[in-house]
Amino acid sequence: MAESLSRKLIADHLIDGDMTPGREIALRMDQALLQDILGTLVMLELDAMGIDRVHTDPSVQYIDHTLIQQDNINADAHLFLKSACERLGIWYSGPGNGISHPVHMERFGVPGQSLVGCDSHTTAAGALGMLAIGAGGIEVAMAMAGEPLFLPMPEIVGVYLEGELPDWVSAKDVILELLRRHGVAGAKNCILEYQGPGLASLSAMDRHVLANMGTEMGATGSVFPSDEVTRSFLRSHGREAAWQPLAADPGCDFDRTEHIDLSRLEPLIALPSSPDKVVPVTEVAGEPIYQAYIGSSGNPGYRDFAVVAEIVKGRNVADNVSLDINPSTRMVLSALTTEGHLSSLIDAGARLHQAGCNGCIGMGQAPAAGRNSLRTVPRNFPGRSGTREDCVFLCSPETAAASALNGTITDPRTLDIPYPHPREPARMIANDAWFVPPLAPENARQVALLTTDNTPPLPLLAPLPERIEAPILLTVGDNISTDDIMPAGSRVLPLWSNVHASAEHVFEAVDTGYVARARQQGDAGHIIVGGANYGQGSSRENAALVPRLLGLQVVIAESIARIHWQNLPCFGVLPLTFVEPADRQRLQQGQYLTIDDLHTQLASGQTVAVRLDNGEHMSLHHELSERQRAILTAGGVINWLKRETTP
Amino acid sequence: MAESLSRKLIADHLIDGDMTPGREIALRMDQALLQDILGTLVMLELDAMGIDRVHTDPSVQYIDHTLIQQDNINADAHLFLKSACERLGIWYSGPGNGISHPVHMERFGVPGQSLVGCDSHTTAAGALGMLAIGAGGIEVAMAMAGEPLFLPMPEIVGVYLEGELPDWVSAKDVILELLRRHGVAGAKNCILEYQGPGLASLSAMDRHVLANMGTEMGATGSVFPSDEVTRSFLRSHGREAAWQPLAADPGCDFDRTEHIDLSRLEPLIALPSSPDKVVPVTEVAGEPIYQAYIGSSGNPGYRDFAVVAEIVKGRNVADNVSLDINPSTRMVLSALTTEGHLSSLIDAGARLHQAGCNGCIGMGQAPAAGRNSLRTVPRNFPGRSGTREDCVFLCSPETAAASALNGTITDPRTLDIPYPHPREPARMIANDAWFVPPLAPENARQVALLTTDNTPPLPLLAPLPERIEAPILLTVGDNISTDDIMPAGSRVLPLWSNVHASAEHVFEAVDTGYVARARQQGDAGHIIVGGANYGQGSSRENAALVPRLLGLQVVIAESIARIHWQNLPCFGVLPLTFVEPADRQRLQQGQYLTIDDLHTQLASGQTVAVRLDNGEHMSLHHELSERQRAILTAGGVINWLKRETTP
Repeated sequence: MAESLSRKLIADHLIDGDMTPGREIALRMDQALLQDILGTLVMLELDAMGIDRVHTDPSVQYIDHTLIQQDNINADAHLFLKSACERLGIWYSGPGNGISHPVHMERFGVPGQSLVGCDSHTTAAGALGMLAIGAGGIEVAMAMAGEPLFLPMPEIVGVYLEGELPDWVSAKDVILELLRRHGVAGAKNCILEYQGPGLASLSAMDRHVLANMGTEMGATGSVFPSDEVTRSFLRSHGREAAWQPLAADPGCDFDRTEHIDLSRLEPLIALPSSPDKVVPVTEVAGEPIYQAYIGSSGNPGYRDFAVVAEIVKGRNVADNVSLDINPSTRMVLSALTTEGHLSSLIDAGARLHQAGCNGCIGMGQAPAAGRNSLRTVPRNFPGRSGTREDCVFLCSPETAAASALNGTITDPRTLDIPYPHPREPARMIANDAWFVPPLAPENARQVALLTTDNTPPLPLLAPLPERIEAPILLTVGDNISTDDIMPAGSRVLPLWSNVHASAEHVFEAVDTGYVARARQQGDAGHIIVGGANYGQGSSRENAALVPRLLGLQVVIAESIARIHWQNLPCFGVLPLTFVEPADRQRLQQGQYLTIDDLHTQLASGQTVAVRLDNGEHMSLHHELSERQRAILTAGGVINWLKRETTP
Repeated sequence: MAESLSRKLIADHLIDGDMTPGREIALRMDQALLQDILGTLVMLELDAMGIDRVHTDPSVQYIDHTLIQQDNINADAHLFLKSACERLGIWYSGPGNGISHPVHMERFGVPGQSLVGCDSHTTAAGALGMLAIGAGGIEVAMAMAGEPLFLPMPEIVGVYLEGELPDWVSAKDVILELLRRHGVAGAKNCILEYQGPGLASLSAMDRHVLANMGTEMGATGSVFPSDEVTRSFLRSHGREAAWQPLAADPGCDFDRTEHIDLSRLEPLIALPSSPDKVVPVTEVAGEPIYQAYIGSSGNPGYRDFAVVAEIVKGRNVADNVSLDINPSTRMVLSALTTEGHLSSLIDAGARLHQAGCNGCIGMGQAPAAGRNSLRTVPRNFPGRSGTREDCVFLCSPETAAASALNGTITDPRTLDIPYPHPREPARMIANDAWFVPPLAPENARQVALLTTDNTPPLPLLAPLPERIEAPILLTVGDNISTDDIMPAGSRVLPLWSNVHASAEHVFEAVDTGYVARARQQGDAGHIIVGGANYGQGSSRENAALVPRLLGLQVVIAESIARIHWQNLPCFGVLPLTFVEPADRQRLQQGQYLTIDDLHTQLASGQTVAVRLDNGEHMSLHHELSERQRAILTAGGVINWLKRETTP
C-alpha cells in the first residue's frame, strides 16, 4: 500500500501500538535534543532515575536560552549542564554556538532518524526528513534512558505546494498562510507532510521555518522529503554521507490534504498577540514601529539574515527603530561575517546580539511599552517579549527589514529596490572544537554533577488519591499557553531549574492571586478550568510540574494541547475535557468539585463523573491510555518507574 | 613661566578662582557627555531647572549601559532620552553605537577643549589633549545650563614615560603599574599629565586606557599632549581639522613627578576585588579560569580586540572558558569585521556581544559563583560583575587571550607564538546617520518629554536644619565605592531613573538592614560613618541623592573621594572628615550625634563640633567652599538655583 513518508518513518520506529489516528503508539527515539532551561530538569530527572549513560545517540545539550548572565545563576547552570553531559554521555554545545534547532540541523540531523527534544520546536528537524517531536522533559528523559516515546498516532495532513514564491515573499509567509487558514489548534495531533513541485524552490532552512512553526498550529510534527535540496544542505555542511533519499510513495493517501499555490501568496503578518491573527501586510502598513527583530528558530537560515543585509545595505535604519540582529548559529554568524553581510548590517545601524534564542524567549530586547515590534520569531503570545503590554507582530525578514528602513510597517514590495537573492555559501565552515563530545564511559563515571542551590533535587509527589474534593482556584479563557502558565523572560528563566523558586511566578500574567490561593489551599489540592487549546505553545514540563507542586490535581478544559496533555499525568495531574462544551459555563472559580472512586472510574472507561457543590453532576472525558493511567495514579513518571523497577 | 599642559588647559577655561592646589576653581565647559543610566536624572534636573536649550556644544547622550532590555523599562528610557535630546539640543547616540568614552573620542573629541561628563571615566578624553572631567549629574546639568564647573584646583603630577613596551606588554600594564605603586586613592585631587619619549609608541586608544583608569587612582583627570599620534588618530577618523598641537612648556614644573621605564614592565594583573591589588601575572599563573572578558572603556581600542583575534586565530578557546567579546564601538566592530578579526574570534569559539558597556557594569556575562574571571575592564569592585561572590581580575587583552586558550591564568609571554602587531586600519569608517543631531530650536520647542512611571519628577529636598540630632545607622570600612552605596547590575540599573524604586537597593551588598533602619528613622535623619576614600569609583550622583531621600544628613569619613564629596552637598548632605583619624573608633552604629548651630559653625571656619551621646565632644573638619555651603544649607543645587533666580 502506498504510504506517506510520515507513516513510513513512524513504522520504522514503531515499538508498540496500532497506527490508527488517536491510538497510543510507542516509538523508538534515535536522537535527543536538550535546551538549557528545560535541560536542567531533565538532568535532575535522569539522576533521580539512576541513569548512568543515555541510550540516544547523539544526545545533545544546547546552551541557547540562558545567555544573559545577570548573576551567577545562569553561568552556574552552564557548568552543571556540562558536568551532566560529561557524566551521562551527552554532547555539549556551549553558549555562543546558537539555537538548538538550526544547530542540530547543521551538525547532527540525519534524514530518516527520529529525534525527541524538550522543546516544542524540535519539530524543525522534520525539514531534513526526520521524525522530530517535541515532548515534556520527563518524556525526553525516559527516551534517553532507552524507553519508548509514547504519543497518540497523529493524522497525516498532506500539504501540497505548487508554484514558486514571488519576489519579496518567503517561507515565513507560507506558514503564516497556514496559520491564517487553520489557527493555532488547526494541526493538533497531526503531522504536516509537505510535498509537491513547490518544494524544490524551498531550501532546507526555508523548510525549517515551516517545520518549526508547525508547532504554532499544534502539530505533532512536520515532515519534508529528503531530496536533492536536503543533500545540498548536508553537502554544504560537510555531511553529505548522512544523506539518503526519502519520499512518500507516489499516490499515497493522507488523512487530510491542503493545497497552497506559492505564486499567489503575498507578504503576511500576524497581529498581536497570537500567531494566527494573520492579515496581509498591506492592511497595517504605515503604523509606526519601535523595533524590527531578526533571528530565532522561526527564521534561522543564512538567507534570512543575508536578505535583510542586502535590503539595508548602503541605507540607514530609521532613527526611531531598533533593528536587532540575533544570529541563529555560530556557523551562520561566521558566514555572514566572511560574506560581508555583517558589515552591511552594522553600517546601516543594526544592533548585533550574541547567537542564541535571546528576545524570542524574552531574554533581552524587550520593546518599549505599547510600541510595535516586528519580529521574525515563531510566537507572539502576550508578554513573551518581556514587556507586559507588548505589541509583537510576526513577519518575514523582508517585511521586518523594509519596515526598519521606513520606521513604519511596510509591505516590502513597495521598496523601490530590486529583490535581493543572496547566494548561499557553497560551504559553511564549522570547527569541530565548538562541540564537546561525550566522555568515554570509564571517564564519565568519575564525573560528579556540579549542583547548586538552584538545582535542588526534584520533590517526591504523592500518588493520586481515590477521592478528590477540591475547589476551582482559577478559570481561564481559550488558547492559554504554557507561557501563561509558567512564564519565561530573563527574570524567571534562570529559576526554572529550581521548582520551588519558579512556583512564585505561575500564572502571574493571568491572575496574580493564583499562587497565594493555591498555597493557602496547600496539599488539600485544587482544580483549574480552561477553555479550548489549553496549554498550547512551548513544551515546558514545568507548566505541569510546578502547578502540581502548588497543589493542582485536575485540569478541566474544552481541549488540551498535545504536549501539555501528556505532561500533566507525567506529574500526577488528571487532564479532563468537557463532554458538553456548554458545561464550561457551569464551573466558576470558588466552586468545590468532588470526584469519588477515581481509580475505578479511570479504569472503567473514558468518562469521569464529577459532583458540583450545588449537588448537580457533570460527566467529563479523559483519553488516557492504560500506561498513562498507571503513571497518573502512581503520582507521576518517577514514582511509576521506581515501582516498575522495584522487585 | 613654563607651565604644564594641564595648567594651560585650566587657565584657558578658568572663569573664577585661584589656581592653587586645593582652592576651588570655576571652569567653563565646552562639551558635555551623558550616559544613559545617569543621563535620565540629568534630563529630569535640566527640566526641573527650566532649561530650554543646553549651552555646551556638542552635548551628547550615549545609550551604552542599558542595552539588555528585560522588560520595557530600558526601551522606554531610550525613548525618554531621545525626546529629551530633541527638546534640549543634544546629540543622541543610540543603542549599538557603543561606549560613550571611545565613541566620544572617535566622533567628538577636540584637543584643547574641556569636557564634563556624568561618568567617572569621562577622563578618558584626556587622551586627546582635552581637559576632561567626570562629575555628578547635577554638576553636569549645571554646566550644560551654562554655569561653570567647580572643583578644587588639582595638583599636577608629571608622569614621565621612557622606553618602549616589550612584546606581550601593553597599555593596561602601564596603568596597573601605577595602581600597584600608588593605590586607588593615589591620585586624588590630581591630574596625571603624561610626557616623555615613551609616549610616541602609545596610540591614542592606548592613551585612552591610561586616561580612563586614572579614575581608578582617584585622579581628577589625565592629560596627554596633542601630538602626531593624536593627529593620526583624528585623521583616521576623518577629523584631522580638529587637531592642534598641544604640549607642556619645556622644563615646566609639576607638583609631583613619576617615572616609568616602559621597557622594564611585565604583564600585570589586579587580583580580586580592587584595581590596586596588582601583582605580576606569573604570581597567579596556572589558576583555572571560567571567563576571559574583552572590552569596556578600560581597553576599547581596535588594537585591543585585534590582538586577541590574532592570538586565538586558528586555535581554540579552552572548552571550560567563556571568551566574551564586547566591542567598544560600532566603528571598532565594523573595522574588526572587514579586517577579518571578527571571523578569527568567532571561529576560535568566542562569544560576541553587542557593542556597549555590558558586563563591565554588571549588565550580563556575570561569572559563575567563586570562579575566576579575567577582564580587560577598569574595575573589579566586589559584586560589580553581577555575581555576589565574584573573583574578577583585571589584566591586558594579551593576558586574557592567552588565559582563554589555556583555561588557566597565563603569562602571555609563555605562549609559543610570535607577538602579533595588528595593523590599525588607515581609515575608520563611520556613517553620519549613526548619530542623531540636535533639532533646530524652533522644532525642539515642539517636542514633549516622553516621561513614564519610571522617570518621576525629582522630589523636593528640605533645607539643612540648624540643629542635627541623629543616630549613626551605618559604619563601613575603607574604600567603600559608589557601587557599594548605589548598586548597579542589570537588576538595579533600569531603576536608577526612579529614585523611589532605587532606594530599596542602597548599600544592599554591605548591610541589608540599612534601608529598613533608615526608613524607620525617616525624616528625623541619620548619619553614616566611613573610612578612607569613601565614595570612590563611579561618579553616580544617586549615591548621594538616594541616601539623602532615605534621610541621610551627614557623612563622616577619614577621607571622601572627590566626585562623591562634591555630590553630597549638591543634595544637601554634609560631608565631614576626622581631624584625628583615631576618632573613627569612637563612633559606633546606634550612637546619637548632636550638632548645634550648624549654619554658624559652617560659616565660621572649617571645624564642626559634634557632641556624642555619652557627653563627649569631637571636632570634625569640612572643606566646603562658600558656594558649596550655600548649596548645602539650601538643601541642594536645585533649591539653591531657584533661590538665586527668584527675584
